[in-house]
Amino acid sequence: MNIKLQTLKMRLAEVVDLQRSAALLSWEQQTYMPPGGAKARAEQLATLQGLAHRLFITDEIGGLVKELSNSSEQQWGYDTNEASLIRFVARQHERERKVPSELVAELASTTALAQEAWALARQNDDYPTFQPHLQRVINLTRQQAECFAPYSHLYDPLLDKYEPGMKTSEVQKMFTGMKDELIDLVNKINSRTGVVKNEFLYGDFDIDRQREFGLCIAKKFGYDLDRGRQDETLHPFCTHFSIDDVRITTRFDNGFLPSALFGTMHEVGHALYEQGISPDLDRTGMDTGVSLGVHESQSRLWENLVGRSQSFWMHFFPKLQMVFPEELGEVTQDEFYRAINRCEPSLIRVEADEVTYNLHIIIRFELELELLSGDLHLNDLPGAWREKYKDYLGVAPHNDADGVLQDIHWSIGAIGYFATYTIGNLLSVQLFDCVQTDIIDLEADISKGNFDSLLHWLRENIYCHGSKFTPVELVERVTGDSMDSRPYLNYLQNKYSDIYNL
Amino acid sequence: MNIKLQTLKMRLAEVVDLQRSAALLSWEQQTYMPPGGAKARAEQLATLQGLAHRLFITDEIGGLVKELSNSSEQQWGYDTNEASLIRFVARQHERERKVPSELVAELASTTALAQEAWALARQNDDYPTFQPHLQRVINLTRQQAECFAPYSHLYDPLLDKYEPGMKTSEVQKMFTGMKDELIDLVNKINSRTGVVKNEFLYGDFDIDRQREFGLCIAKKFGYDLDRGRQDETLHPFCTHFSIDDVRITTRFDNGFLPSALFGTMHEVGHALYEQGISPDLDRTGMDTGVSLGVHESQSRLWENLVGRSQSFWMHFFPKLQMVFPEELGEVTQDEFYRAINRCEPSLIRVEADEVTYNLHIIIRFELELELLSGDLHLNDLPGAWREKYKDYLGVAPHNDADGVLQDIHWSIGAIGYFATYTIGNLLSVQLFDCVQTDIIDLEADISKGNFDSLLHWLRENIYCHGSKFTPVELVERVTGDSMDSRPYLNYLQNKYSDIYNL
Repeated sequence: MNIKLQTLKMRLAEVVDLQRSAALLSWEQQTYMPPGGAKARAEQLATLQGLAHRLFITDEIGGLVKELSNSSEQQWGYDTNEASLIRFVARQHERERKVPSELVAELASTTALAQEAWALARQNDDYPTFQPHLQRVINLTRQQAECFAPYSHLYDPLLDKYEPGMKTSEVQKMFTGMKDELIDLVNKINSRTGVVKNEFLYGDFDIDRQREFGLCIAKKFGYDLDRGRQDETLHPFCTHFSIDDVRITTRFDNGFLPSALFGTMHEVGHALYEQGISPDLDRTGMDTGVSLGVHESQSRLWENLVGRSQSFWMHFFPKLQMVFPEELGEVTQDEFYRAINRCEPSLIRVEADEVTYNLHIIIRFELELELLSGDLHLNDLPGAWREKYKDYLGVAPHNDADGVLQDIHWSIGAIGYFATYTIGNLLSVQLFDCVQTDIIDLEADISKGNFDSLLHWLRENIYCHGSKFTPVELVERVTGDSMDSRPYLNYLQNKYSDIYNL
Repeated sequence: MNIKLQTLKMRLAEVVDLQRSAALLSWEQQTYMPPGGAKARAEQLATLQGLAHRLFITDEIGGLVKELSNSSEQQWGYDTNEASLIRFVARQHERERKVPSELVAELASTTALAQEAWALARQNDDYPTFQPHLQRVINLTRQQAECFAPYSHLYDPLLDKYEPGMKTSEVQKMFTGMKDELIDLVNKINSRTGVVKNEFLYGDFDIDRQREFGLCIAKKFGYDLDRGRQDETLHPFCTHFSIDDVRITTRFDNGFLPSALFGTMHEVGHALYEQGISPDLDRTGMDTGVSLGVHESQSRLWENLVGRSQSFWMHFFPKLQMVFPEELGEVTQDEFYRAINRCEPSLIRVEADEVTYNLHIIIRFELELELLSGDLHLNDLPGAWREKYKDYLGVAPHNDADGVLQDIHWSIGAIGYFATYTIGNLLSVQLFDCVQTDIIDLEADISKGNFDSLLHWLRENIYCHGSKFTPVELVERVTGDSMDSRPYLNYLQNKYSDIYNL
């Protein structure tokens, strides 16, 4: 084996180990850590992430990549793991060396503390105690973005971190194109009040039985619990410490069945992606999903295109009725299908239906741009939040817990992240269209609770590649096309015309 | 502030962060990690521990310590944190730089895998599958010890890791002095069969109620659960990720009440030590107990000298009866006190009474010496184990799960560790004698369930110092004397003469 490549891989493995250790510290902070642990945890995260950065941006790695780059594609061929690794590391190295390791460390500790403050502030509906933390996070994030000057837009480098290659102007164009059509569709649906009922989704649903049913679906989907586990957190997420250790977390609400049910399917979608990555990419840094947008396309595919479909519930609704006979015994499958797809403007993003969901994202994206440019001061953020909700969704929160404090993202420094949720929605439909073309019996399989063909297809075409290709390359390879909002909007129009008899 | 000292502290903080992160990874491996995670976890532990070592043995730290050493005691005074830090780091640096970082890393990954293999082997009573892992651990441990040549005994450097300053010859002398007296005491007690009954400790004790009662005692002792938590593991332990994040784990047995009850008190004893360390020592490496022997003296003090005393149960027995009225309603406090102190040769160390306990340790110590010297081959280890149990305790295990596989220690490379359990027993009595001299009302306080005075004394005299002094210095400062087995043997003679009317 090429000695330089071998050396490069050894160095990368060390960096990946530090990053994955940091991920574990962070997971533990959200699952089990006692409150007293927060200060030291922040310091430890700063050390691990600062060190991982320092060990990655070395001249040694830079030199190895440069030397290997010259001959890699001739030697190995574009699609090989070797050539892909060299391209991948070259891009990352070029990017990361622009940021000082001290800033990486400071962001890590600042966000670890901000996250604790956010959790408390949300619990007590107390935005003012969170505001100074958020200010620090925004300042550091701005500093981080400025390292990448020159840029067309200060927001570009932030977006690029989560969706490599994506530009602010592209997102703006995409959102502008979707916004009116979505608002129009929401209004049409709203005029049909009473067509879809969902009272039976509210009640007192035993949490142990919810958990068991959720795990039963997770296993059917193909989530391997010998290489993963489920825990409970305030904000559900998926994280991984290796291809063979991929965790999901869930938030249970005994009063509202869909919360944990679809939350579990969503996180399992992410987990299937990570568990499906080729073991050959282990500890290279390419052993993870290629971008948050593509990642989200998988969580949404399993949650919505599978989990909120009629075929899915043909198999699972009778089972769910047996788990909750009192609550759902008298409900028909069709009533249930329509209820879980009920469209109604609401305050909480993670529980929004497919139509209104993207409006929640557009609001956050617009606010982020204003915060970052300085046009919006943090004092005015809760008010601006309410204004936008009134404008786009016709509803506004009565408190900040359901408003500006509802998401964990800003506290953890994930600014530039929200747009990837909508990118994920769009891609989920584009990719699922391809699956449907390739697998004739897909709907029949799903209606029998058999997901083998679907998982196999996704693994072969998407998951196994990890981060070998750029998101744009991957989408092009699979769909033969670039990202497009039209298929998604068509999907919504069709699905909701049917449900609401528009 | 002295700029060199400040630099030194910054470097140390980074090393400590890496070590504490490794401790979290290790804790998580034993509490929640799915089986698939083992391989990557081993690699990550190797990276963290190897890196911590590499960053500690640098010439920069060596140089700083050397320069600071020259003037530290004149400048700051022997007892100050500053002078203590410099002495502490000088000793550690001198020691650690003898071992290659690669060996540290290899030991970390080898033991992480060996630990998984041990857990499985113990569960399946399958020593042969564990044997090759143990062989690797012993080989690496021997290699590690050999880095410290010349030494009087190959075992010295291993012992020194857990009990700085202690020599093999001292332990041998101490054990020889105790062994006959202990065996003699056991035989005397054995001749009084039927004097102490404990059938009522076996039954079906609801685990939730056991947990609640254990935590109630833990809180009364002073364990701060905002800065700690309890989880369940195969082998109970205490670990810490900072002074403000000190965890205990417990093993519950619904069939035998004392197991979790005294196991909890024991680990809480360790935790009180760590939680009581002065925050001024945070992230220096001195922010932990000074040696395993002194640490164990605290777990044993709370478990045995407090938890197995008559005064303790004056307060707690009525409460325990209310928790388990069916099982203990008819038992008197005196019967209960005698039952939990029943002396009987048995197979399992962690459940041994105070008299036989040290014989379990002596057996392990002797076997370790033979294994390390090569006099005992691993094929013959299970047999040698049985022989020694028959010789010293008159009992022998029918399977390896209750024999050579019962302890986690060898799998995690903790060879040289067991002797510190007995050191802890001896010191617990020496130190408790001092407490009793200083606090006139101690017994009265304990019999009212009030541990404030005791905890305060221990914090002031022992806990707060962390690793500022050597174990020998600390014992000398507190007791005015050196370690001695006589007080412990006297304590056993008195206590057991009383219980068994010898």
